[in-house]
Amino acid sequence: MKSSRFEANPELSDKVVEVWEEVNRQHPLVQCLTNTVAQPVTANVLLASGCAPAMIDIEGEAGPFASIASAVLVNLGTVAPAQQAAMPEATAAAKDAGTPWVLDPVGVGAPPVRTKLAQELLQDKPTVIRGNASEIIALSGGIGGRGVDSTASVDEAQSAAKQLANEIGAVVAVSGEIDFITDGKNSYECANGHPILTLVTGMGCSLGAYIAAFVLAYDDTLLATAAAHACFGLAAEIAQSSSSGPGSFAVNFLDQLNALNADVLREGALLR
Amino acid sequence: MKSSRFEANPELSDKVVEVWEEVNRQHPLVQCLTNTVAQPVTANVLLASGCAPAMIDIEGEAGPFASIASAVLVNLGTVAPAQQAAMPEATAAAKDAGTPWVLDPVGVGAPPVRTKLAQELLQDKPTVIRGNASEIIALSGGIGGRGVDSTASVDEAQSAAKQLANEIGAVVAVSGEIDFITDGKNSYECANGHPILTLVTGMGCSLGAYIAAFVLAYDDTLLATAAAHACFGLAAEIAQSSSSGPGSFAVNFLDQLNALNADVLREGALLR
Amino acid sequence: MKSSRFEANPELSDKVVEVWEEVNRQHPLVQCLTNTVAQPVTANVLLASGCAPAMIDIEGEAGPFASIASAVLVNLGTVAPAQQAAMPEATAAAKDAGTPWVLDPVGVGAPPVRTKLAQELLQDKPTVIRGNASEIIALSGGIGGRGVDSTASVDEAQSAAKQLANEIGAVVAVSGEIDFITDGKNSYECANGHPILTLVTGMGCSLGAYIAAFVLAYDDTLLATAAAHACFGLAAEIAQSSSSGPGSFAVNFLDQLNALNADVLREGALLR
Repeated sequence: MKSSRFEANPELSDKVVEVWEEVNRQHPLVQCLTNTVAQPVTANVLLASGCAPAMIDIEGEAGPFASIASAVLVNLGTVAPAQQAAMPEATAAAKDAGTPWVLDPVGVGAPPVRTKLAQELLQDKPTVIRGNASEIIALSGGIGGRGVDSTASVDEAQSAAKQLANEIGAVVAVSGEIDFITDGKNSYECANGHPILTLVTGMGCSLGAYIAAFVLAYDDTLLATAAAHACFGLAAEIAQSSSSGPGSFAVNFLDQLNALNADVLREGALLR
Repeated sequence: MKSSRFEANPELSDKVVEVWEEVNRQHPLVQCLTNTVAQPVTANVLLASGCAPAMIDIEGEAGPFASIASAVLVNLGTVAPAQQAAMPEATAAAKDAGTPWVLDPVGVGAPPVRTKLAQELLQDKPTVIRGNASEIIALSGGIGGRGVDSTASVDEAQSAAKQLANEIGAVVAVSGEIDFITDGKNSYECANGHPILTLVTGMGCSLGAYIAAFVLAYDDTLLATAAAHACFGLAAEIAQSSSSGPGSFAVNFLDQLNALNADVLREGALLR
Repeated sequence: MKSSRFEANPELSDKVVEVWEEVNRQHPLVQCLTNTVAQPVTANVLLASGCAPAMIDIEGEAGPFASIASAVLVNLGTVAPAQQAAMPEATAAAKDAGTPWVLDPVGVGAPPVRTKLAQELLQDKPTVIRGNASEIIALSGGIGGRGVDSTASVDEAQSAAKQLANEIGAVVAVSGEIDFITDGKNSYECANGHPILTLVTGMGCSLGAYIAAFVLAYDDTLLATAAAHACFGLAAEIAQSSSSGPGSFAVNFLDQLNALNADVLREGALLR
């Protein structure tokens, strides 16, 4: 568990279970246009969680598929020209078809190509935006960080997140020591997770795909996004307790995502 | 092991050992033009099996290399424009040089780009076509599934597979509860494997590369393809028995592929 | 450990510790333009080692980022057109900004696209060139191997390595049974490592990124490159001792990279 904690809220823990059970019942098909580094682990996270990944990220297919997918993830980690063409096609189709979609603005701020692309994609109204503090601040008009690290704290990012949420009409989630999830008016905090998540590539990116599945499965987008953080973070806590380092943690994490159940979630979820 | 089983055929089990020993003796060099999600696990499956992967998938290199490689895998999972250009170059060169090649038509059916590309590549006469039921049905003129899931059963796909095999002059393999491998006239069924394979990304894609190595190493393509299914599936069964979920299974699977031996295969292969 | 060994040189072992401690203190940000097969493991190797990976490999971002990154890795394993455009941008910017950069000429020799690209990139004066024997011989004007395998021995490559080092003004490292690291005048040999490294994809590629971090952190490039080999190889030796095959080895290796410490290095480093 993280070092900063708070008391569990039993009512919210019950809600986490409710959302998680819906995800399990519906087996969402999540279309992922994501970076090539995180593709394998993202697909494995979805599969271990009873969801179906579809890595359909090319022009001519991305749009049509976004019309029929359960949900779409757009992650800007390695936006080669082929993805630069496919992403607006996917988000426009998702918007038209009412398919929920998640934007993960990896590294926006200084790198010009993805930063411009992120601003363009925002016009298709993502359902959820997930990033670290630096990315959320950069996306709301501030300045960015160094690569995928976050150099700003979650606290500093809270006002940026609220502003962005109000402006776009999206839920905005800021990953950090305590995750902050807001729709601009109401907010949740999640204390589940473990710092070792930052020693494995693609964990934040996979959380974006996981959120997409949760958002499809449950009507209350803000709660669904918060619940995704709690489930993901709790699986990480359990996995860490039997790990010897980042290698074995990554393996155990997939096992624990797959082994999550209502009792474990009701006892371990830390939302407020 | 899978729930649907049948009695082992000792003569076929001996044949599996014979094929597997040839693969080990020859260390085939398998050129892979495959999706970016499955690239790491595909390379690791080949390396764990004593084969050499070469992920040479760009225009200008794919063709020349296909002329000298032991075998070629073409997998349509993420066919960005760069691969769309390289794949016909590779398959044309493979055809000209007599290099055996395997087509894995991931997701064909609804997605238009890969479906058109698959039809084009079929003209270069793949040695083996491997897919799930929906993909094989779609490729033989039927309708497709949702992403890489299979929504059609293997049974339904058997007539489509035979038709496709006869039309192309290829061996066609349909992965499922019981794998079905046919050249249009003769067929094998394989009961090795485990459902947990479907919870790890890239397993079917890796099987395609594994088949390519087997087809190179042994003259009887139908038997070699069936033997590849038996070896791959048996390693999965053994791996599953000591796994705690899909994460540890994926790790154990590579260990068990590497640890396969003639005795284990003779005892565990389930072909008929 | 490898079969060919020699006595440890205590003074050099102390130097390895000194370099390793600098890497840990500085947490280098390594920009990786690398092949899509090795991206996940490369990022995980850097993260497990306290470094920060940034997989920024597209035109328009690769250059600006190379000016601010700690170090840059350019690996030619899968040079699709998008990377062919981004790599010269990155190496030119690295040269201008004085950012150290490592060239890993995967598979150069026969494949024409990467071989021509490698020659072009050499003009931007890589700080270190790392490859297997065949690749180093090919790059210095000889003939190449089959894919990423090395068909030439390290011994044969030593004169090619020295010639290349003198010509480019770079440190050249040849991976093999005994690694050979030279600046053309002075050389080190490293006996750390284990043959199982060749059964896991992306290990050599990850070593390239690891070297980039070491070169940034320590002034003596030749020693830093040799120290990277010793640390990487020693972690592999320790990981292997508790592994059941290539799957569990890959997991343990990340754990052991993360667990390295001064005592272990001082005792186990094998440089001369």
